[in-house]
Amino acid sequence: MPIALRLHAPVILPCDAACSVIRDAVVDIDGNGRIAYCGTRTRAPALPHDTVVRECTGVLLPGLINAHAHSPMTLLRGMGGDLPLLRWLREVVWPAESRLRPSDVRAGMALGAVEMLRAGVTTSAEMYFVGESVVEATLAVGSRVLLTSAVIAAPDLSTLGSWQQMVEGVNRWIDADGLRFGPGERIELGYGPHSAYTLPPEALQVIGENAQQRGALVHTHVAESSTEDAELRQQYGSVPMLLDELGVLDGRVLAAHGVHLSDEDIALFARRGVGLAHCPGSNAKLASGTARLVDLLAAGVPVGLGTDGPSSNDDLDLWEEVQLSGMLARLSTGDSTAVTARSALLAATRGGAAALHREDIGALESGRWADIVHVDVDNPAFATGLDAPDEQLLSNLVWAAGSRSVRDVWVAGAEVLRDSEPTRVDRRSVQAAARTAAQHVRG
Amino acid sequence: MPIALRLHAPVILPCDAACSVIRDAVVDIDGNGRIAYCGTRTRAPALPHDTVVRECTGVLLPGLINAHAHSPMTLLRGMGGDLPLLRWLREVVWPAESRLRPSDVRAGMALGAVEMLRAGVTTSAEMYFVGESVVEATLAVGSRVLLTSAVIAAPDLSTLGSWQQMVEGVNRWIDADGLRFGPGERIELGYGPHSAYTLPPEALQVIGENAQQRGALVHTHVAESSTEDAELRQQYGSVPMLLDELGVLDGRVLAAHGVHLSDEDIALFARRGVGLAHCPGSNAKLASGTARLVDLLAAGVPVGLGTDGPSSNDDLDLWEEVQLSGMLARLSTGDSTAVTARSALLAATRGGAAALHREDIGALESGRWADIVHVDVDNPAFATGLDAPDEQLLSNLVWAAGSRSVRDVWVAGAEVLRDSEPTRVDRRSVQAAARTAAQHVRG
Repeated sequence: MPIALRLHAPVILPCDAACSVIRDAVVDIDGNGRIAYCGTRTRAPALPHDTVVRECTGVLLPGLINAHAHSPMTLLRGMGGDLPLLRWLREVVWPAESRLRPSDVRAGMALGAVEMLRAGVTTSAEMYFVGESVVEATLAVGSRVLLTSAVIAAPDLSTLGSWQQMVEGVNRWIDADGLRFGPGERIELGYGPHSAYTLPPEALQVIGENAQQRGALVHTHVAESSTEDAELRQQYGSVPMLLDELGVLDGRVLAAHGVHLSDEDIALFARRGVGLAHCPGSNAKLASGTARLVDLLAAGVPVGLGTDGPSSNDDLDLWEEVQLSGMLARLSTGDSTAVTARSALLAATRGGAAALHREDIGALESGRWADIVHVDVDNPAFATGLDAPDEQLLSNLVWAAGSRSVRDVWVAGAEVLRDSEPTRVDRRSVQAAARTAAQHVRG
Repeated sequence: MPIALRLHAPVILPCDAACSVIRDAVVDIDGNGRIAYCGTRTRAPALPHDTVVRECTGVLLPGLINAHAHSPMTLLRGMGGDLPLLRWLREVVWPAESRLRPSDVRAGMALGAVEMLRAGVTTSAEMYFVGESVVEATLAVGSRVLLTSAVIAAPDLSTLGSWQQMVEGVNRWIDADGLRFGPGERIELGYGPHSAYTLPPEALQVIGENAQQRGALVHTHVAESSTEDAELRQQYGSVPMLLDELGVLDGRVLAAHGVHLSDEDIALFARRGVGLAHCPGSNAKLASGTARLVDLLAAGVPVGLGTDGPSSNDDLDLWEEVQLSGMLARLSTGDSTAVTARSALLAATRGGAAALHREDIGALESGRWADIVHVDVDNPAFATGLDAPDEQLLSNLVWAAGSRSVRDVWVAGAEVLRDSEPTRVDRRSVQAAARTAAQHVRG
């Protein structure tokens, strides 16, 4: 297939397993939006003279992956955030969510998708309701989503139907549209059983079976808060053990949080290839604790990073989670060398893809989708120069640059953010729609 | 004195003690750059028709105060950041600092001052060498500095002279130029004894006496790492107790870090009015721990926030420290309501001023300097609307917005940042000079 676009940059970080730094490098993108070549310019294949070449002045890297989000909650951002958790849920979040109409979810997700593109996030694993609205918004903005429709049995949310009805809904949708669809396979569907404390074991088992029949992901909250976790341990040993006994771990599983995993839980996750979405910011803000990132990585668990919902964290800036993952690992272990810039960056890219059980995103490698971020180096974070040694450059990018340096973003080879502005939607219209929806949701 | 400039905005946060939110508000600035009025527009004094009125579309608040920085270390940013602390100092930092020329310090400080303005920081308490270069750079960029020249007795830095020579240098400078000078009194001089582990008690005592004679600030590292702190506790009881015995606490004192303070140390600091610069990011990245922010505030210690040096943290973005102060307080206490948006914002402004023993900055109140930040609300962080309730708006500003929302900045009534670009220096020239200096410093 002919090359549709070549990007040339002074530095490319393909996020291969070694987290290489390639100087004077190119990425070639084919007509389907997949990467054909990524490497040094001197070794790149010759191209016809009329191939479009885009000269980038900064650093190219794969689009970041937000491994755990409830992005439509942008509409609730800042509501009651200084309340204790249970009062916040009962007095603020659930009443507001009960007022959500499909158009509100679409508006909230569109805002979240724009916010994520501006932070260099091209894919998010979303657990939320009204999936059709999430898909519509994602397709409109141009990003990628792994939508795991929420399945929950909670009295406060009974208007959504029974868990059986929710599971049937996902089954029907996947059977009609396929597991992945949309241009560049930008939509993937999966199951989002909320947790072992809001669903009976039977529900988890049924969901696991349905997901495995369809090759779909199961995305669930595990061991987030110590009180929830302690109760479940008494009942089941541990949630990972319960999920294993129910057969859920035989398929693709993404566990969010995992703050309170034991050594045995971690070993089990590693053995069964369960992905973990580490959400350091949300876990800190809600005083839940810090997941054992160093131990998880050492055991070989595929770890990605997640923002969690923007109503608690309070934004969808994954770059902050990258920096927090390093800071909190060092703080919790007492080792100032724990989690290098390289491993934090890999968790946000290649690791996130692995946690989602996806090998087609998260790295700039032949055959993967051309989801690419261009980081602007014309700012103080990079003032020590692009000619700095690899380690210094990586450190500047990961620990100092932040999302404000994100300039351009491509998804499946299409430019969806240019000069920090989305190309497919008007940012101000998206903000205005979100504002109207937020006013409705506040009631 | 006539009003030189009126700023009108839909929302102003004066950072008074209650952290009020004023709607449809104005700030009036007199010809000397001080605030004449801040309050609702309807109650504002009538002005002559030719008074300049600037219409702001976002939120106005006082310039943030970085209560502990070594900003010229921008030149070392990212060098060896993944090494253990002592190897990093001995193999990377000190050799690099021994190569610093005055022009390098000027270039590094100018870059730091620009970076801080872009994050809304108008004042920093700097502990560093080659103070003349720090002052020159600050005056050129247009920001404000409380420069406490470093005093240290360390074999690796013996080329700088003895501690006695360093103290004499500060004495002579203050006696010649005064404690505060420059347009808008933008420069203040003070003493920066590095710490009780790099100086003998006699030095601390002599510095305290000289500072008190001149009304100057003493700015020193206290109880940063547990190893350093444990040794000093064995020798002296504790560093706060030692400083008290030596008479140092009779004057203006700013203690940086204070990670390992006991209940008695905190009570002593509160009783003696010692300011504390809380540096949550640096303390996490270096695995030092987290200062007891909740206890410090409850005891009445004046607490500001600091970035520490950008070679370890790795930037001068105080907004990140605001967010970290909340997250790490909640994480370390297990209380998800500890440190509200209001108290985090006050620590970065009014609290920072109090920690520096300054009553002329840190709030938009009559008589204080007109150091003002204009936050752009045309972005997803504020998409729920400026008409959201006060608590939600504060939460969006503090927890979600971040430094990329900072648009315009005034210092002593002069606009020094406009549309995120410094007005008095060319940002790219500053970056280019820093790059040349950084190359020299890398050796």
